[in-house]
Amino acid sequence: MPLPIELWFDFASSYSYLAAERAPAVCAASGITLAYRPFLLGPIFTAELGIKDSPFNVQKARGRHMWRDVERLCEKHSLPWKKPSAFPRPSLFAARLACAAERQPWLGAFVRGIYRANFGDDRDIGQPEVVAAVLEGLGVEAGPLLDAAGTPEVKTLLRANTEAAQAAGLFGAPSLLVGGELFFGQDRLEDAVAWAQR
Amino acid sequence: MPLPIELWFDFASSYSYLAAERAPAVCAASGITLAYRPFLLGPIFTAELGIKDSPFNVQKARGRHMWRDVERLCEKHSLPWKKPSAFPRPSLFAARLACAAERQPWLGAFVRGIYRANFGDDRDIGQPEVVAAVLEGLGVEAGPLLDAAGTPEVKTLLRANTEAAQAAGLFGAPSLLVGGELFFGQDRLEDAVAWAQR
Repeated sequence: MPLPIELWFDFASSYSYLAAERAPAVCAASGITLAYRPFLLGPIFTAELGIKDSPFNVQKARGRHMWRDVERLCEKHSLPWKKPSAFPRPSLFAARLACAAERQPWLGAFVRGIYRANFGDDRDIGQPEVVAAVLEGLGVEAGPLLDAAGTPEVKTLLRANTEAAQAAGLFGAPSLLVGGELFFGQDRLEDAVAWAQR
Repeated sequence: MPLPIELWFDFASSYSYLAAERAPAVCAASGITLAYRPFLLGPIFTAELGIKDSPFNVQKARGRHMWRDVERLCEKHSLPWKKPSAFPRPSLFAARLACAAERQPWLGAFVRGIYRANFGDDRDIGQPEVVAAVLEGLGVEAGPLLDAAGTPEVKTLLRANTEAAQAAGLFGAPSLLVGGELFFGQDRLEDAVAWAQR
């Protein structure tokens, strides 16, 4: 039995879009279970880098390369791409909703839907109505989930994920955890799969 | 005719070791000319990040992952690996020597030799005798080249490379330039090859 792979992601993260789109098929092809672990990069960037923004905004040259690189990678993997008019988008609400939906069979489709809204359609995923539209596109009644996203239990879940991410040594997204082994970046998806099969 | 690929590297850079080892065979298999462009990361990190050290030392969690990641990648690509006891190693002297040797047929072998000394054998590449030993291992008389590395002409070559790197938007190493298109990281070697063949 291969080990499961945990995909740790922030909905604001551009490279996480590629991971969320690529991981399900790559894992399924190898019989690997994929677990979704939403967390927030903000507190980690503040702790590790002392910044309150994306490193891709603070580091100009790195940021210019990232936008071009993600555009090229979307073309390579045949994914829709539209450079977001705001970056990073507020991901807190959608992340809470992903926590509220952690046992739902449509969680993976929701995660991909939010990423496509952000990076394929340039929609503001910080707006509850955008999140609701993604849910409704999956045939899921949005109201009860939007309510659940605001409960203390769900807020605690997301906070615990972010703390667990920091404790596991995560410093960016996407990150892949396989039996405690950390792989950073969507580039490492195939290496993580090989590790899960060792 | 595919475009040539320029490999921009700093001998202190751990991921550049992988690029320098992997690029010759990958490019040769596609009939692509590989050009070696040594430069110094220090001035770029100072300008872009305001730091006087490697980001992998300043950012602790990122650094921990890098060491483990490079170790895994060396295993994957069957490359010798010994974590350097000092990081980053002073790369100025070896970089000047690579500039002095820019038209020599053994330049690629010298580049790989310095990387192996640093990351495969934990040797201090800042020492002229270590650089000389690499040259002699290639059957090259070291004396004249060590002298050339100290000339104003060669110092100017390396300074010009570092300025050209900054002007081209480089922010780290290894970087690959293909007809003005920038690919950052040894992970992008195959993407750069595909771009060269478009």
